[in-house]
Amino acid sequence: MHKIGIVGGTGYTGAELLRLLANHPEADVVAITSRSEEGRLVSDIYPSLRGHYDLRFSVPDTDELSQCDLIFFATPHGVAMDQVPELINRGVKVVDLGADFRLKDTVEWAKWYGMTHRTPEFAEMAVYGLPEINREAIKVAQLVANPGCYPTATQLGLIPLLEAGIVDPAHLIADAKSGVSGAGRAANIGTLLCEASESFKAYGVAGHRHLPEIKQGLQNVSSQPVGLTFVPHLVPMIRGIHSTMYATLTDTNVDLQTLFEERYKDEFFVDVMPAGSLPETRSTKGANFCRIAVYRPQGGDKVVVLSVIDNLVKGASGQAIQNMNIMLGLPENMGLTHLGMMP
Amino acid sequence: MHKIGIVGGTGYTGAELLRLLANHPEADVVAITSRSEEGRLVSDIYPSLRGHYDLRFSVPDTDELSQCDLIFFATPHGVAMDQVPELINRGVKVVDLGADFRLKDTVEWAKWYGMTHRTPEFAEMAVYGLPEINREAIKVAQLVANPGCYPTATQLGLIPLLEAGIVDPAHLIADAKSGVSGAGRAANIGTLLCEASESFKAYGVAGHRHLPEIKQGLQNVSSQPVGLTFVPHLVPMIRGIHSTMYATLTDTNVDLQTLFEERYKDEFFVDVMPAGSLPETRSTKGANFCRIAVYRPQGGDKVVVLSVIDNLVKGASGQAIQNMNIMLGLPENMGLTHLGMMP
Amino acid sequence: MHKIGIVGGTGYTGAELLRLLANHPEADVVAITSRSEEGRLVSDIYPSLRGHYDLRFSVPDTDELSQCDLIFFATPHGVAMDQVPELINRGVKVVDLGADFRLKDTVEWAKWYGMTHRTPEFAEMAVYGLPEINREAIKVAQLVANPGCYPTATQLGLIPLLEAGIVDPAHLIADAKSGVSGAGRAANIGTLLCEASESFKAYGVAGHRHLPEIKQGLQNVSSQPVGLTFVPHLVPMIRGIHSTMYATLTDTNVDLQTLFEERYKDEFFVDVMPAGSLPETRSTKGANFCRIAVYRPQGGDKVVVLSVIDNLVKGASGQAIQNMNIMLGLPENMGLTHLGMMP
Amino acid sequence: MHKIGIVGGTGYTGAELLRLLANHPEADVVAITSRSEEGRLVSDIYPSLRGHYDLRFSVPDTDELSQCDLIFFATPHGVAMDQVPELINRGVKVVDLGADFRLKDTVEWAKWYGMTHRTPEFAEMAVYGLPEINREAIKVAQLVANPGCYPTATQLGLIPLLEAGIVDPAHLIADAKSGVSGAGRAANIGTLLCEASESFKAYGVAGHRHLPEIKQGLQNVSSQPVGLTFVPHLVPMIRGIHSTMYATLTDTNVDLQTLFEERYKDEFFVDVMPAGSLPETRSTKGANFCRIAVYRPQGGDKVVVLSVIDNLVKGASGQAIQNMNIMLGLPENMGLTHLGMMP
Repeated sequence: MHKIGIVGGTGYTGAELLRLLANHPEADVVAITSRSEEGRLVSDIYPSLRGHYDLRFSVPDTDELSQCDLIFFATPHGVAMDQVPELINRGVKVVDLGADFRLKDTVEWAKWYGMTHRTPEFAEMAVYGLPEINREAIKVAQLVANPGCYPTATQLGLIPLLEAGIVDPAHLIADAKSGVSGAGRAANIGTLLCEASESFKAYGVAGHRHLPEIKQGLQNVSSQPVGLTFVPHLVPMIRGIHSTMYATLTDTNVDLQTLFEERYKDEFFVDVMPAGSLPETRSTKGANFCRIAVYRPQGGDKVVVLSVIDNLVKGASGQAIQNMNIMLGLPENMGLTHLGMMP
Repeated sequence: MHKIGIVGGTGYTGAELLRLLANHPEADVVAITSRSEEGRLVSDIYPSLRGHYDLRFSVPDTDELSQCDLIFFATPHGVAMDQVPELINRGVKVVDLGADFRLKDTVEWAKWYGMTHRTPEFAEMAVYGLPEINREAIKVAQLVANPGCYPTATQLGLIPLLEAGIVDPAHLIADAKSGVSGAGRAANIGTLLCEASESFKAYGVAGHRHLPEIKQGLQNVSSQPVGLTFVPHLVPMIRGIHSTMYATLTDTNVDLQTLFEERYKDEFFVDVMPAGSLPETRSTKGANFCRIAVYRPQGGDKVVVLSVIDNLVKGASGQAIQNMNIMLGLPENMGLTHLGMMP
Repeated sequence: MHKIGIVGGTGYTGAELLRLLANHPEADVVAITSRSEEGRLVSDIYPSLRGHYDLRFSVPDTDELSQCDLIFFATPHGVAMDQVPELINRGVKVVDLGADFRLKDTVEWAKWYGMTHRTPEFAEMAVYGLPEINREAIKVAQLVANPGCYPTATQLGLIPLLEAGIVDPAHLIADAKSGVSGAGRAANIGTLLCEASESFKAYGVAGHRHLPEIKQGLQNVSSQPVGLTFVPHLVPMIRGIHSTMYATLTDTNVDLQTLFEERYKDEFFVDVMPAGSLPETRSTKGANFCRIAVYRPQGGDKVVVLSVIDNLVKGASGQAIQNMNIMLGLPENMGLTHLGMMP
Repeated sequence: MHKIGIVGGTGYTGAELLRLLANHPEADVVAITSRSEEGRLVSDIYPSLRGHYDLRFSVPDTDELSQCDLIFFATPHGVAMDQVPELINRGVKVVDLGADFRLKDTVEWAKWYGMTHRTPEFAEMAVYGLPEINREAIKVAQLVANPGCYPTATQLGLIPLLEAGIVDPAHLIADAKSGVSGAGRAANIGTLLCEASESFKAYGVAGHRHLPEIKQGLQNVSSQPVGLTFVPHLVPMIRGIHSTMYATLTDTNVDLQTLFEERYKDEFFVDVMPAGSLPETRSTKGANFCRIAVYRPQGGDKVVVLSVIDNLVKGASGQAIQNMNIMLGLPENMGLTHLGMMP
């Protein structure tokens, strides 16, 4: 049984870690921190945890946390980059669900996140935790930067095309849609039920922080410069991401369906659906799967890829546990084999 | 490993049985029937099952079904009463999620369900599957009538008061609210998203089929005649039942909080919340728990009980598996220890 | 054309006043105040107003406001009781959508609202603005206390029974359900989409501020002491209130359907539906109507009344304009004849 | 007062016509037809109409209908093309909300709609009812083909760019999202609340009937061949369309904001929002407006246009009434000046 800590556990990704780890056979959550909720039972905030956790929120303490085998950081950006280094130095493994270590280019990072990166060498050493791309590196990583939700859905959708070199990488479009839980549990007017339900809108059109992260991941598998237009939208639902991607084929002789099936045939968590399928986000609700379909409308030169995940699971906490499993030498799908909740 | 069959698997309770049984360590679903979907993969209808079930729908066949250790009937009323007897006679255990065997009084049953009961002796032998009341009988039952969703939430809320004899049983009120999945997966105008969302209404005010079932259960624990006014309502959400119950105290000296905590202290699936709590249906979303709170507003002579469940889990498929576990001598909570999905 | 002011216009009732008044042929909104949004266009906060209002939020100024013929206060409790008296003294008519002047008993008021009432003489002079009860007094009122949302739906449902003296007034129950807009536009975690959607819960069970208001209104039409148990619930939708009311008949010979139809036959905004109807909140969405149905389940001694309104219209801003029309001598339904939005 | 008829009034567009026309000062609905609901009060199906309409559904009768000044057809495709010609011949004006007369190329029409067009000469004579493009022709039209919902939002968004000739017309992308009411009021499993809420998916990716309609409209204003990839999606909400459009600029010196503002400066129903705005569908809920924003992300060569409407109003019944007003010589916005409902 491995000792697990969670730093910053009051948000949705923290709560989702607790939900998913409650029945994990080899992980025991021994510490969860929150300055604002110190001393309070986690089940007071999240009654769904009643009867499963006696845990109370504690103030982050490096000595106590360093007793853990692995620690999840579920904190806003800017926190992990200060606290992670000491834990790494003491030999603790870390999965950061935040954005601090996702970009190798910390100058670029500073531009998008509005602060200087104070520990760029850790951004350099961190492994980007998309197992379907980086599995071998994750196995030996001490620090994993867990991907963002949009980047997970979008990279899994576009990477087979770029790896195969059959699309023009300079004019990629990702029109992405997310449920409201992607905005977190902070009290904002914009995510009130009365403001966000029964409506649909784009946001971050001028530039969203996930853009450089996606571009970095796509560039890594492309021999030519990647250009990406990325527009996220807010969907009046709690969970789910749907990324609709458009690219222009440079080779129209490739069987796209076969290409995707081959690329992901050994991936437990990526399901390439039969030709003609229409993936619904709800088929992944609460589960760690990504479902993908690929189209070539009217037999033209455009390829359309549809990719769905649960933003809180494969897009955050589930993928973090997938990374944990890999880092700790456990079966990659341990504790993650449950199905999506339908309806 | 026990062989499990599901008769009538295309509806929501059938799908929920599949979801919950997918990771049950001692149950193996070997047959699922549907005349209309014969030969089709269950995962074609429910893509969330992809990768977990290779099962195809088959036409119900008694010989094949009698190879099972236990069969769930997830059929409309009127089906099980014809098909169950032969299976029982062949030694198969049965849990009926429908209404055929819930009422002992089959004349009353006929009145509410609009058809004669063709196998009243099986209604007589069936054990009403509310484990918190009937556990010992369920252990030795061959046929269990799984309770309805409203009856589960409402009986668990009122029974402690009636058992203690501290309320007037003649004037009970249950104002109950259900998510739309309670209406099933049939294509009806009334449950279209555009008709049922962003609205709230009562239904069945003149008389609902769950009324006699609830009264029967309450009468069983009351020494005096039970009178119940039951008004169900439709809530614009997928899952969840909230029953708000009102009774007049005949003894105002009883500590209601202690009464409820004592009554359910050994029940894994019933959570009496601390005084002053407000149970939310979502705290049970996808999970087999019932959460209850009890109030005496302004210290008067009225007691108000709030009881929440997931109608598809504790109100249907989860409770059916709980009954299966008891009938097969397995730990009662096996395969049912996962937490509610939040948010 | 009458000059209208709105004090405290950033919330949902303020926005709804603007929406409804935009096409009112005899009302011209000339001032809208908000300290926090001073100088900002109202259409910046509410883009649905673009093209209809050039108005900017201003800081409340008594001289400016006293130029108005009538002023709506859409402020939290505690504000109007200080600002209204001076305006009244200057001859301006006022409709307060808040709670300051609703209770005649200002000691009771202080208990429920947690502050001393600083202008009890104005609470005394205020007319309770439920036109279906108080029309004649409203005609000559200078200060109208606009009823709360729950009190409107509940009083309209119970008053015919109490006026007729055919129910036991000591044991009334109102199980009420409201859409989330009733909680206002403040940024609270509890009303985030991810917290309030796909869930249902009761709140204020121990005591809600609308309880004394409803009791006061019911007592006014009852010769015997009124006892009321009132439990509000939160429905995962934006607009709408459904009040389900239970009473015990002392006279079971009365034709309830006729009683209600007669009581409201001259009321434009109260629609007694045919026997057997199930009022849906959405039938009043955006409109100033109250729809009511009355039942006597199984012919017993219980009467069940179902009453629905849009909490922001007949439960707030629409009723306020109805009161304005009466106070200004305009046709009572002027500007309020539009239909509910369906679907 | 003009006499108005509605053929096929049981669906959402029929109901919306009734809602919008209820307060239209110059239109009087004298007939509404439905074979299936003959004799039934329209307010029985749509209780929100109670008190406003005494109208009953009647069987379509050409003699009776020809007494009308103008008739709306709110029928599935294939109906209007048979019934409209006789009415036109008798001098009645017609607005068809269906698809029968939208495409000039009736061979293409047959391919997409799966039936031969039986009155191609009427498709030829029909005026495409997008007033912002075709106002002069609509003024003298006897038959107007009311545009589809996606085509309205998408054409209004792309036409300024194509008219100005500043984008490559061969590689246009429209990623469109619609509320569920776009699928109509038929009882289908796919649009049940439990199937469509809390989920998001694309549909019609291989080819959707609105594709040729949009292409026809864009080609009309483009000197070069138009290529369009159109992917519609289903949003878990009732009303609203959001079209996100992508094009590659061939001239990056144009001020896009000014271009759009100029193009629509005289259009009452098209609101070009300030630079940086994010149009929400709800800002048009229940109202006949289209709101548009235009972006050039990161100053690159891609232009992104966001366009929102209410699919049942500007995307159907509201636009139909706008066309009616133009055809009857009434002020274009008569009866359509009400604001969107917020929240």
